[in-house]
Amino acid sequence: MGLFSKDITTMDELFTHVLQDIYYAENRILKALPDMIERSTKRELTAAFKSHLAETEKQVSRLEQAFELMGEKPKGTKCPAIDGIIDEAQEIAGEIGDKRVLDAALIAAAQAVEHYEITRYGTLITWAGELGHSAVAKLLSITLSEEKAADKKLSTLGKAKINKRAPALRK
Amino acid sequence: MGLFSKDITTMDELFTHVLQDIYYAENRILKALPDMIERSTKRELTAAFKSHLAETEKQVSRLEQAFELMGEKPKGTKCPAIDGIIDEAQEIAGEIGDKRVLDAALIAAAQAVEHYEITRYGTLITWAGELGHSAVAKLLSITLSEEKAADKKLSTLGKAKINKRAPALRK
Repeated sequence: MGLFSKDITTMDELFTHVLQDIYYAENRILKALPDMIERSTKRELTAAFKSHLAETEKQVSRLEQAFELMGEKPKGTKCPAIDGIIDEAQEIAGEIGDKRVLDAALIAAAQAVEHYEITRYGTLITWAGELGHSAVAKLLSITLSEEKAADKKLSTLGKAKINKRAPALRK
Repeated sequence: MGLFSKDITTMDELFTHVLQDIYYAENRILKALPDMIERSTKRELTAAFKSHLAETEKQVSRLEQAFELMGEKPKGTKCPAIDGIIDEAQEIAGEIGDKRVLDAALIAAAQAVEHYEITRYGTLITWAGELGHSAVAKLLSITLSEEKAADKKLSTLGKAKINKRAPALRK
């Protein structure tokens, strides 16, 4: 079962469903990050993953507050999108020999995760605003800013610090 | 098999693998869009999907040119990430009764697709630049600009045109 079920007939129900989707996603990310921390070799990248793990814990709490504000219990709904993104990320772990290439692949995988979160939070904030859940919109906006900053940091790391140390070019 | 395989030992191999990943993704999107066009009800949204279908065809051609520039044959590699994102999008089709809620859900699904493409093209352009494949970087930059514009257009449609017509709020 993905984002949507036959029960959805109102925007409020759709909103709750996407909230459950991102709650499931954040919890999967929480479980995936320790492995990415372990596998990354470049110091700045490991530090970025560690800092994002702490940030993700806060984001999960914010989602729990959002459920509370909506008068609902926090609940996840399995979403094939984040499962696919994280499954790909996890494949990297044991499958690229060269550490520097692995770092570059880890950055790419983490940015795919960030962009999934950016799109979902963006949608939720728009809907929350229009549905009158302004406190929820405000909460989720904090997280969205963090996700955008995390993506930007990964872009910088990818450009300046890691790829230039990658193995010699073939052409 | 996702993005990565045991054969990857150089940045060039990683680059090719991600190129194959996005080639597979664009082709899945090409197949998914006609159904989204069919299901969308708001005229501006249908028009946006139609225009993105035409754009996606050009993006597939650009990827084929990129493979050619790399001296390789165009080839896709199955990627669980885009499969998950599109599977979710397709679930919407028959499962939300209200047409206006469906339009909002279709926009959210399409934006998740756009963000997946934005992150992959962003990564590829960075790597292409650093690996000296400047013609490939230039080609893919055109596509990245289109994807960002498509995402922005969907955001605007989601905010201004569709959600406000959604069913009455429950709170």
